[in-house]
Amino acid sequence: MFQSFETTSDPASVAPRVAALREMLTEHGLNGFLVPHADEHQNEYLPPNAERLAYISGFTGSAGFAIVLEETAAIFVDGRYTLQVQEQTDLDIFSPLSLIDLPPHKWLEKNTSDDMTIGYDPALHTIGGLKALTKAAEASGCALKPVETNLIDQIWEDQPPRRVEPVRIHPIQFAGEEAKDKISQLAAGLRDKNRTHALISDPTSICWLFNIRGQDVAHTPLMLAHCLLRAEGRPMLFLERSRLNIETAAYLTELSDLVEPSQLPASLRSELNENSVVQLDPNQSSAMLADLVAGADAKFVEARDPVVLPRAIKNQVEINGSRAAHIRDGAAICAFLCWLDQQEPSSRTEIELAHKLESCRVSAGEKAQMPLKDISFDTISGAGPNGAIVHYRVTTKSSRTLQEGELYLVDSGGQYEDGTTDITRTVPVGAVGADERRAYTLVLKGHIAIALARFPEKTRGVDLDVLARNALWRSGMDYAHGTGHGIGAFLSVHEGPQSLSKRGMEPLLPGMILSNEPGYYREGKFGIRLENLILVREATDITGGDLPMLGFETLSFVPFDQRLIDPDLLTPDELHWLNAYHGHTRNLLSDHVDEDVRAWLEAATTPISSELPAASA
Amino acid sequence: MFQSFETTSDPASVAPRVAALREMLTEHGLNGFLVPHADEHQNEYLPPNAERLAYISGFTGSAGFAIVLEETAAIFVDGRYTLQVQEQTDLDIFSPLSLIDLPPHKWLEKNTSDDMTIGYDPALHTIGGLKALTKAAEASGCALKPVETNLIDQIWEDQPPRRVEPVRIHPIQFAGEEAKDKISQLAAGLRDKNRTHALISDPTSICWLFNIRGQDVAHTPLMLAHCLLRAEGRPMLFLERSRLNIETAAYLTELSDLVEPSQLPASLRSELNENSVVQLDPNQSSAMLADLVAGADAKFVEARDPVVLPRAIKNQVEINGSRAAHIRDGAAICAFLCWLDQQEPSSRTEIELAHKLESCRVSAGEKAQMPLKDISFDTISGAGPNGAIVHYRVTTKSSRTLQEGELYLVDSGGQYEDGTTDITRTVPVGAVGADERRAYTLVLKGHIAIALARFPEKTRGVDLDVLARNALWRSGMDYAHGTGHGIGAFLSVHEGPQSLSKRGMEPLLPGMILSNEPGYYREGKFGIRLENLILVREATDITGGDLPMLGFETLSFVPFDQRLIDPDLLTPDELHWLNAYHGHTRNLLSDHVDEDVRAWLEAATTPISSELPAASA
Repeated sequence: MFQSFETTSDPASVAPRVAALREMLTEHGLNGFLVPHADEHQNEYLPPNAERLAYISGFTGSAGFAIVLEETAAIFVDGRYTLQVQEQTDLDIFSPLSLIDLPPHKWLEKNTSDDMTIGYDPALHTIGGLKALTKAAEASGCALKPVETNLIDQIWEDQPPRRVEPVRIHPIQFAGEEAKDKISQLAAGLRDKNRTHALISDPTSICWLFNIRGQDVAHTPLMLAHCLLRAEGRPMLFLERSRLNIETAAYLTELSDLVEPSQLPASLRSELNENSVVQLDPNQSSAMLADLVAGADAKFVEARDPVVLPRAIKNQVEINGSRAAHIRDGAAICAFLCWLDQQEPSSRTEIELAHKLESCRVSAGEKAQMPLKDISFDTISGAGPNGAIVHYRVTTKSSRTLQEGELYLVDSGGQYEDGTTDITRTVPVGAVGADERRAYTLVLKGHIAIALARFPEKTRGVDLDVLARNALWRSGMDYAHGTGHGIGAFLSVHEGPQSLSKRGMEPLLPGMILSNEPGYYREGKFGIRLENLILVREATDITGGDLPMLGFETLSFVPFDQRLIDPDLLTPDELHWLNAYHGHTRNLLSDHVDEDVRAWLEAATTPISSELPAASA
Repeated sequence: MFQSFETTSDPASVAPRVAALREMLTEHGLNGFLVPHADEHQNEYLPPNAERLAYISGFTGSAGFAIVLEETAAIFVDGRYTLQVQEQTDLDIFSPLSLIDLPPHKWLEKNTSDDMTIGYDPALHTIGGLKALTKAAEASGCALKPVETNLIDQIWEDQPPRRVEPVRIHPIQFAGEEAKDKISQLAAGLRDKNRTHALISDPTSICWLFNIRGQDVAHTPLMLAHCLLRAEGRPMLFLERSRLNIETAAYLTELSDLVEPSQLPASLRSELNENSVVQLDPNQSSAMLADLVAGADAKFVEARDPVVLPRAIKNQVEINGSRAAHIRDGAAICAFLCWLDQQEPSSRTEIELAHKLESCRVSAGEKAQMPLKDISFDTISGAGPNGAIVHYRVTTKSSRTLQEGELYLVDSGGQYEDGTTDITRTVPVGAVGADERRAYTLVLKGHIAIALARFPEKTRGVDLDVLARNALWRSGMDYAHGTGHGIGAFLSVHEGPQSLSKRGMEPLLPGMILSNEPGYYREGKFGIRLENLILVREATDITGGDLPMLGFETLSFVPFDQRLIDPDLLTPDELHWLNAYHGHTRNLLSDHVDEDVRAWLEAATTPISSELPAASA
């Protein structure tokens, strides 16, 4: 089982831990300490030893920030976690605030004064993040002081050790491009810009660049390492030799100069000098790394990690891999949904369903001889009101038994060597009300609007986001998260720079993969989310226009539940898309599922008839 | 006649003028000179003496920038003017470039070197604009040097004198709020932010703040002046006393300390000191003003002109005024379109049509005893291929005779004391082709999508822009301009900060007025644009939702030409909106038009029937 359902946090542990941290503050002459949800690589899913925010606050979401002062403490989360944080932390200790409306630096500015000194761990804050904090501190007059050993580490008695797992080569039949070619292209890019080095600290970038995968964090096949890319010569890779077997050692030694991570500061000092121009990503690299570069007298230039864009634009091998992974994954979900339809509702819990879904993925992987390597994140398995918690993680404590008349929302994904998947479906448990059905159909209209979108070059995610919301907005409804995130190729399930959201300023380019996942959440009642992955590609099915357009190819294939669709709310275009999608789903998956699932699939993909003549534009 | 149709520029004059400017360069020891489309107030429509860009390049558009070096010269325009600039300038002298894709500062960086000195007039560049230029100059190594007297002024023999026209009070029954109340609220805002002054150089802001109007530029009732707002005490208003009669002098003297503009530098020196904190808008105030503030030892803070937001959020009196102005203006356009339908196409030219339209507005104003004070911009009166020139200005040279089978596009507006209008309609001249009809209907779908939009608080223009493009995009078509701009109340026809565009980052607030004007342009063939003004307001017609939403009230009322609408391309929702809009138009305008126009209006607003049952969401 890749997922655990234990309650890893307990609000009751918050008070004594914060008390211990406050003693540490006194000991270090500090008036506060910053606790970001971050490790030194800015991973979204942290290795266990870096779960400092969860340790101190109880909050286990994938993004957040805490500030603990002597008397008060605040925790900042985004719209996905508004409900979760209230359940997990001790509200007498931490005030939950919005990461978006009142970011930590603004709160710091308002809640500190010029007689205060606030401690922070420079390895955990990005260059850009620290800049905002420093500016806020200047405004309030308080001092920010780096600490050598993170204060949480000093009070965390049973902190797990750092994970140093073996690494393996990601074969060329999945990667599609040799690491040496990737490296030489990036080096040429540095030379073009008159930069001598780029210091890369994003493990996703390093894994992609070297065609290497690891297992240092849950659900993402990452190897945590740093890399100093050189404009001339081989890159330096800061990685423990103890992780490497003969084969991987030979492979990486041919590509790079391997250096032990403990030697990073000394290596930078000897490699860099006043003629060096080192590129660092201010949104990714830590303030500590910037200090090391500056300490070596090198000039540093803030620029985006040069791997980000080539990694986001999938090559043909990665695209074909993703298509294959999605058929396999779709077959697994269909097997799960077919099984679910045969269950007596009140006999099954959210945890049992997550178990069953994982076993369906394992079976589908075995059948295709492309084993499930991991799930791509903890399955969100939420019935009734739990479905309204956007990033709900079911635990033994929260797990509900399915009830007749509820909606069940399941958001999950698989890690296969040929691709990473992420899909959400919402299904009825028995007969559900008209509100649920109407809301489902409005969300589906948004999903289809994105699937049908065509757009010219240079269009960004922000330019498309509203298409997914328009039907909901016109009905006075919305959802408090973005419409889509980028995704990696057997890498991170959340991978930039592209996104479909109000902050999505990155132009969408052919080869990028995103999620398309509008939703609707009625607190305490139900949640709906409908998610497929989509590939940006040239749109070839347009006649009569005068501009080349881009569009999306939907990659995920699993039926949308027709018991929840009100066809009267769909336009002819939308109905046409839905029927065509269901037809593709049936054709693609039929050969990959067992007989009972095939029958279920036939029924689930029956075309919806319409009396309406087609109004097409 | 408020509009002139003379060809004010001639490509043949460009060569000798640029030669004269290059002689000036040598004389001043410069290697180049910057010529923005700007006066010292950053007006969009320049007073004649500030038309330096038109003088040197021949290009008369409302936005642009030229850089003249010793051997080469470039002119930068946006998508609206791509065609126009090629017709107006001398292409052997000026290379036309995109203001968006390669802004002047980037070009400067690429085309200058460290042995060069480039001159500029510090009164014409904003603080922010000069920053970008300075950074570019630093990158290339060239020097930027302010000149005391603009080099264009030194070669421009018949340069008109600066206009200093009388000013008049904008009565409270149109302004809706006393100037003294506006002033005291802004002063309180400065005190809240610990600022002692705000230096305001936008004439629109000053006219709004003092409830004063002038006539210093064409088509916008502006009085050009500067104002130093004080946190304590009355503002200083830098304005020629010679413009004031007894009444306006008494009015303004009660509100402000009146100072002659020539005394601005000396006044700042005596008013400001090292304890002053002066707010300047980096996108509005000139580098010269920033230098004056810095020269007075005052601290300056970059912040948006504090008038911008209160000016954009119209009060109830301004909203009611705008509604009344739009009924009057709609009646004028209907009279014009009715007349046009009675003409033999080949008997009429674009200029005659612009004449006729203006006379219809004058008549409607007289009839309502609310005279047309000016047109709000030069009427765009374009037939056939001229309609494809987005900001076409008809001249005696370009004016076409209408031809059977063409489209005619007319974009125009009026300045009335109770409101500023801006409306575009496209009509067929006789029978037109299927392409035109299809394109018109797709543009109309975009227009209706904006009109029907509902959106939650904090939604920005960028979040809505795609709604106007989606139908076009899905057909491989687009338009190279924003969907909508803000508009003033008997002020500028283009007024920020709100916009519906890819750059529209300003949240839309109730009371803001914008245009809704998608279009489609087929170069050399035809142009289509459909524009109404819309008011942001609370949406009250939503049932079943759980969020308060905003929406738009359409203010302009003129029928959309049914000869160009293909109802088969409209959804039931769109058709329903169109029929309801036409019904409102008929009801609102019938009493304001003559009998023949009333008959035309009846016919033009006949509901389009549909066999389709309504699919509503």
